[in-house]
Formats: sequence, structure tokens, C-alpha cells
Amino acid sequence: MTRPPEVGALRARMAELSDLHSVSMLLFWDQQTMMPPAGAAARGERAATVALAIHARESDPELGALLDRLEPWAAGEDPDSDDVRLVQWTRRDFEKSVRVPAELAAEISKAKALGQQAWQEARAANDFSLFRDALAHQIELRHRYVACFEGHAHPYDALLDEFEPGLTTAELRPLFAELRDALVPLVAAAGDPDQPRNDGAFHGTFGVDAQRVAVLDVLEGLGFDPDSWRLDAALHPFASALATTDVRITTKYDEQDFAVALYSALHEFGHGLYEANVDRRLFRTTLDDPVSLGVHESQSRMWENVVGRSRPFCAWLRTRLADALPAALNGLDVDGLYRAVNTVQPSLVRTEADETTYNLHIILRFELELALTEGTLSVDELPAAWDEGMQRLLGVEVTGPADGVLQDVHWSAGLVGYFPTYTLGNLIASQMWDRLRDDLPDVDDLLERGEFAPLREWLREHVHRHGRKFPPRELLRRVTRNDLSVDPFLRYLREKLSDSGVLARAA
Amino acid sequence: MTRPPEVGALRARMAELSDLHSVSMLLFWDQQTMMPPAGAAARGERAATVALAIHARESDPELGALLDRLEPWAAGEDPDSDDVRLVQWTRRDFEKSVRVPAELAAEISKAKALGQQAWQEARAANDFSLFRDALAHQIELRHRYVACFEGHAHPYDALLDEFEPGLTTAELRPLFAELRDALVPLVAAAGDPDQPRNDGAFHGTFGVDAQRVAVLDVLEGLGFDPDSWRLDAALHPFASALATTDVRITTKYDEQDFAVALYSALHEFGHGLYEANVDRRLFRTTLDDPVSLGVHESQSRMWENVVGRSRPFCAWLRTRLADALPAALNGLDVDGLYRAVNTVQPSLVRTEADETTYNLHIILRFELELALTEGTLSVDELPAAWDEGMQRLLGVEVTGPADGVLQDVHWSAGLVGYFPTYTLGNLIASQMWDRLRDDLPDVDDLLERGEFAPLREWLREHVHRHGRKFPPRELLRRVTRNDLSVDPFLRYLREKLSDSGVLARAA
Repeated sequence: MTRPPEVGALRARMAELSDLHSVSMLLFWDQQTMMPPAGAAARGERAATVALAIHARESDPELGALLDRLEPWAAGEDPDSDDVRLVQWTRRDFEKSVRVPAELAAEISKAKALGQQAWQEARAANDFSLFRDALAHQIELRHRYVACFEGHAHPYDALLDEFEPGLTTAELRPLFAELRDALVPLVAAAGDPDQPRNDGAFHGTFGVDAQRVAVLDVLEGLGFDPDSWRLDAALHPFASALATTDVRITTKYDEQDFAVALYSALHEFGHGLYEANVDRRLFRTTLDDPVSLGVHESQSRMWENVVGRSRPFCAWLRTRLADALPAALNGLDVDGLYRAVNTVQPSLVRTEADETTYNLHIILRFELELALTEGTLSVDELPAAWDEGMQRLLGVEVTGPADGVLQDVHWSAGLVGYFPTYTLGNLIASQMWDRLRDDLPDVDDLLERGEFAPLREWLREHVHRHGRKFPPRELLRRVTRNDLSVDPFLRYLREKLSDSGVLARAA
Repeated sequence: MTRPPEVGALRARMAELSDLHSVSMLLFWDQQTMMPPAGAAARGERAATVALAIHARESDPELGALLDRLEPWAAGEDPDSDDVRLVQWTRRDFEKSVRVPAELAAEISKAKALGQQAWQEARAANDFSLFRDALAHQIELRHRYVACFEGHAHPYDALLDEFEPGLTTAELRPLFAELRDALVPLVAAAGDPDQPRNDGAFHGTFGVDAQRVAVLDVLEGLGFDPDSWRLDAALHPFASALATTDVRITTKYDEQDFAVALYSALHEFGHGLYEANVDRRLFRTTLDDPVSLGVHESQSRMWENVVGRSRPFCAWLRTRLADALPAALNGLDVDGLYRAVNTVQPSLVRTEADETTYNLHIILRFELELALTEGTLSVDELPAAWDEGMQRLLGVEVTGPADGVLQDVHWSAGLVGYFPTYTLGNLIASQMWDRLRDDLPDVDDLLERGEFAPLREWLREHVHRHGRKFPPRELLRRVTRNDLSVDPFLRYLREKLSDSGVLARAA
């Protein structure tokens, strides 16, 4: 069949949607980095109007009719063509959009703002009871949301699908159980809750301006291009891209610990690189985005941890920082730096956790989310279950809800099913890295010499350029020839903890 | 009659439009201040999509039908009520939007980008012939645009109305002729083309960071509130507001001349204050914007010139800068500073002109625009007419088109009818200041003591809070009880040039 005119109509609609998503991203980026504080209320109105304009286009019945006409044609085309994939993703997004009644969508949107407000108050007061009702409402809304969809084997599947399209609870549960059973003894063996983060490497007193210069110097070594990237400060660092040529990453600065800004910037660089490398061909198609939070996170964690905490990178970093911020090195040699940035410290707060213990924080949240979704845990029982889980998984005593069950913003905003993608990122990063090492056997030498271009190119070729074209499962198979698995990550972790001396020292 | 439900429908539509206009403003602000250079092409697509969404809403036939139903109701209501004014302005905007055929609107939009590109090349090459065709096309498009409207006495009226609603050529032409005939001899008497700008006050070597600190210190003295304002650097300074609580002004820095950053910031502060002071009641109504470019400019020029170049302000500024940037004062006393910032230097480039000669640059452009619109001047004759006008009005010899007929971006973007608003701003500022002085007879003392609150409050009460509610002519009558007039500005200028010693010295 020849390419029907409806393809052009679909692409025109998707171009408009892509523009509106980019605008929405700018509203968010600006709010987090630039907006004067008093602008928040008005910004909420502007963002809501753009969100409504997006929703109206995504759920437009004429779009459904267009897809109805295009699908018979697409069935006879090359299944890997951009247009066929565009039809498939648009159908998926359309169905997700139209199945949720407008009334429920409005209630979800409203509950988000109210939930965050209740959470802030509860956290400030270190009092879970102030958050209890808002959370119960969020869980109830999740149940109503799940009920809009059919064909899921487990109610949690509908929630996971928002963040990791196609991933099921049936797959994830045994994976995370296996990971938990391996990590708990590893952390018990290697962990030392009393040592400072990164064993005190990068501790000192460093002005924000000097830190920023040093971070930029490191990032430019990695491939940050000032012509198409920005680096700004944000309270909660994030990366966003308004286009592949307009990539904006953020970091935060702790004047007593340069590691905060450095590793946060490495992390966001990984996100940014993914965005920057999506094929220009996909621009304004809605395939021009990263495919899932898990795959996105695999890229950030690869640069932050797999690269950023490797011995060869430590060697390069030491040389680089010797010029840019010499005081930050605390006189550590390569071995000392390598060991320091891989230390294991069981602790209370996820966002401050090291690479190893981090996953146990996630697994706790996953277990609790599953139980809340299945109805085997009530909201009232949640704080005790949290505290019990922290003891069981990490061996730490929770000191209060602010640093315990109230520490994360996610649930207050109704984000259930989101947390697993953080650890998925670690698993996927290791799986991809094994494959990358097959193709680039000298990758350690390249890292030590600061030659990052072959690594960037490999990631571009195998992962980034596809954008959202292939669903996560398919992308992972194409890249690694495997499904999700915990072995590569566990092997990588054990090897690094031994090699760096962290395991031996603790033992 | 009771308030019909259509009022709510109209307000909901206007709220959405107000949000989209604010988003459009953010896209512009970000592009001028933050966007990485490579992001420009993608930004063009995003901005065009938002512009189309705005146009679709402004020209929606259902909006026309809504207005048809509302107008009979509005005719029986208080003509000063917000709702009645909203109906009137929405009708005006709707008619302007629907009368221009989509085809012509698209051509105008396309010509803007192409025109600016041709202009940049021509200006860089100092060669008018490279811009000639693009400009001829722009003039032709203006004729076609004018032809879309009926009832204007002069074709230029339709162009003026874009920037100064309701102003006519029949009013403006004699005003500007009167101003020209008074200014030409004044400049000849007071002007000295050989002295440096501001007589060298603020010349020196100042780092951008130190300048920014000093500018912010001055602005905070005036009423810049960091909680709801920002100050950034931009190549072509401008002010924008995403809401009354999110006001963003810009300035530019010349490391050899602090006056550039300082007076540019005072100017943009005036614009920003207008935006910040619009009544919160009008938020998201499309009445929540300043009413015209001329009135907007009256506010910026009032702070830059009427306040900023007055003797009492010079006294306050000297004290303020003695702490913030002492080297900038060049040892001048108050009288010296007052005289320096009021010097008159006939020069080639409008954007670098002093307060007095500036208006002759505008009058030249107005005369040429009128002749091009009437068809008495051809595009090919324009460069010679420019050079002749500069000699006639300012007594200066044009050295080439880059600093002559090609110096401004406006015509390349199709902005014909825009220039007069700059000088209208000066006229209106003086007219309003006369009235302000009646109400605040001690305003000079207030300025000298740095007590700007009564001045801000007077402007808020009489001008700013109304937003776009009253058309410019009506607003001016409400504030000053007069129509546009050149006398107050001429009187103010003559008085200041005498009082500061500029006239005496030159004579």
C-alpha cells in the first residue's frame, strides 16, 4: 500500500503535541530553577491550561478515528518503520487517555496538589497522622484508576505501566525478591553505618561558584556541549530537554561536600545525554522522548555509578580535579578515591543512600506499594510496616516519620509504581554495560584517558537514538539479547566492592 | 438584567488565553536569557504552535457567537464594569483576528523570519540592497493587511492601532510636527556631538558581577522585590511579566560604562512596575496586561528619565552608589552628575541617543513610515531619504546603512507603526508627571530621600491597576484630564536642560 494521507495528519497532530509537551517541560524547568517564589500560584494555572490542552489533543475522538483508519494500513507495513511505531504508541496513549473519565482525571489532579500540601505539613511536624487521610485518598484514587483498565493480571500492573510500559508485577516481584535476598547479607557484610558518605572524600569547604566551575569542567570532559546544554542549580536535581539541541540539567551544592554536586551532575548528565542523542528524524513525532523511567534511569546511573565510581574514572577524575578544584581531593590517591566512593552505609534516607543500599530502600517501597494495592496493608499500618522493613532490610532504626515513611514526595502526589524504576535503572545499566564491554573491550582504558566519545557513541547507536520507538522490553532485548535480570548487577556490585576493598575492609 | 451565564463562558475562554499568552511570553523570555544557542530552531516550532493555539482561540467563531449574545446585555450595564470592558476588548481583538485571512496571516508570519534574516545579512554587510526585496515585501504585506480593515481615515491608522489602540494619523502627524519644529533648534543649541555619552559619567572599568550587585541595590531601593521579580542579562534589554507576581526585567552590561546597565535597568523597572501593579482582580481576564506600547513606554521613560535624570534622584543615586559601586561616580558631585546625565549629543544610532535627540530619531522613522504607507516614497528611495532626514533633523552625516537605515530590526519583522510609541511614551510620561506633581507636591524631596513608595502608589492607583481596562485615550483623560500634547514634554525638557546647565554650557 502507498503511504495514506492520514499519516501526514497523524504526524501533524503529534508535532503539535510534542511542542506542547516541550512547553510543559519549560514551565516545569523554569519553576524549579528561575521563577521568583511568588510566581508559583500563577504558574499552577498556566501549567494546568497547557496540561488540559495536551489532554484534549491526546483524547480527541478524531484522533481515535484517525487511528482506526491507519491501523489496517499499518498491519501490512514494516513493523519497525517509524510510522507503524507511531501508530502503535499513539493508540496506547490514546487508550490510556480516554479510559480515565474526565471526572476522575480532575480528582486525581486535585488530589496531587492537596496531597503534597498535607505531606509537607506532616513532614515538617514529623507527624504521620497529618498525612494519613490524604494518603488514604491517594490509594483509593489508585484503585479507581486501576479499575478503568481491563486485562491486567495484577492491579499494580496498571500503575507500573505508567512509568515502565509493559512491565508486569509477575515479572518484577521475583526479580526484586532475588535482589533483596542477595543484597541484605551483602550490606550486612560490607556496610558501616558510622562512616561518613563516600568515606569523607570531597568533604571540605567549597564555594558554590568554584564547585560549579569544577562540575562544568568535568561535564565538558564527558561531552556536555555549552552550545546546546545548560547547567543550573535546583533543590531537587533533575534533567529536562526542550529539544535534543536544548538539554538542561541541574545539580545541587553542599558547601561542605563536593560529592553532592559532582555525582548529582554525573547522574543528570546521563539523563541529558539520552535526551540529546534521540535521532533528529524523530523530532516532533512523540517518539522523540526516552522510552521509560527505568531505561532513562539506567542511563543516569550508568554515568553516576558504573562509570563514575569505577577505578579508571576515579583516575581520570583525580587528574581533572587536580586543576579544577584541587582541595576537593583530600589528598586521596586513586585507590583511596575508588574505595571511598563505593563505601556502603546503611542509612535512613533514600536520596542520600549509596549505590548498594539504595536498592533496599526501593524494595521496601515496592513491597509496601504492592501490599497497599492488594489491600493486605492499610494506610494506618503503613508507618509500622515501614519501620519494620528498614530494620529487616537495612538494619537501621527509624528515628521518626520525617526521615521514615514521610521522607519521599512521591506518594503524596499519587505516584505509585514509580519507585521500582530507580532500581530497574541499576539492573538495566549493568545489563547494558556487559554488552557494551563486549563491543568496547578497552573501555577501562578509554575511561582512564578521558576518551568518552566511543562510550557516548555506543549508547547513542544502541539505546538513545531510538527514543520511544521500541518499548522497554524490546529495547532491552535488542541491546542485550536478554530480559530483565538481577545477575549482572549483583556480579558488578560484588566485584566492585571486593576490588575496591570495601568488602574486605568491612569483613 | 442579571449576569448571564455567557459571562462565565467568556471569562473561562479569556483565562485560557491569558495563560497561553503568559506561556508565549515565557518562551520569549527564556529564548532571550537562558536558552542554549542551538535550541533556536526547535524553539521556533514550539512558539509557532502556541501562537497558532492562541490565534485559534482568539478567532474562534463560537467566541464571536458568545459576543453576539453578550453585547445586548453589556449595553445595559455599567459601562465601567470589568465585564462590559472585557466584552468590548474581546470584540476588538476578535475582529482584528478574523478579518485577516489565514493565508495572509501565514504569509506575514513567514515574512517576519525571512525579513529578519535578510536584515541581519544586509546589516553585517553594510549593504541595503541585500535587504531591499525583503523590505519591499514587508511594505506590500502592510498594504494588504491595511486593506483587511474598513473605516480608517488613513491607511497608517490600521498599523498604529496594533500598538496604540485608537490613535490616528490625523492626531499624531501635527503633534510630531510640532515636536520636531521645537526640538531641532533645541538640539542645535544644546547639542555637542563630540562629547561622550552622559559626558563620561559612569565611565571606567567595572566587572559585570559588581555592576549587577550595584544595579540590584539601586533597584531594590526603588521597589524591586526579589520575591516576585528577576533581573537577568539580555543583548536587547526588555521586561516581561508572566504574572503580576512573576516580573522579569533584563539589562545589558558594558564593562567600560556603568550607565548602560544602570539606565537600562531603570527603564525596564518602569515597565516591570506597571506589570506588577495590575489589579489582581483582572488576573486571567486578558484585561490583565498594560494597555498599549505608548502607555507602557511612558512608565519606563518616567523611571529612566523623569525620575532617573532628575536632580533629586541624582542626589539619592550618588549616596546609594557610594556604597554599592563607588568607583562609578567618577568623583562627580550632584550638580555634575545631574548635568552629565542630561547632556545632548546628536548621534547616528537611536538606541544610544540621549533623552532629547531620541525623539528626532523617532520622528524620522515616523515620517518615512508615513511616506512608505502613502506610497509617496519607494523602498529604493528610502536610504537617501534616511540620510537626508538625519542631516535635516540632527545635523549628522550618516556613515553607512549599518548605522543608518539598517540600524533597527523593526521593519524587517514587519513592525510598521511601532516606532511612534517610543516618543508617545515621553509625551505621556510628562503629562502624567505634571498631574502627579499636583498630587505629590513634595515629590522632589521624596526622590532625594529615596522614598519611592508614594510615587509607586500614585502610579498604581491612577495608571497601573487598570491594566487594559481603559483604552489609552480614555486612560490619559482619566489621569491627566487632557488629550495627548507635546507642551508638557517640551516644557520639562527645556527646564531641565536649563536647570542642569546643559543649555547654558552649550550656548
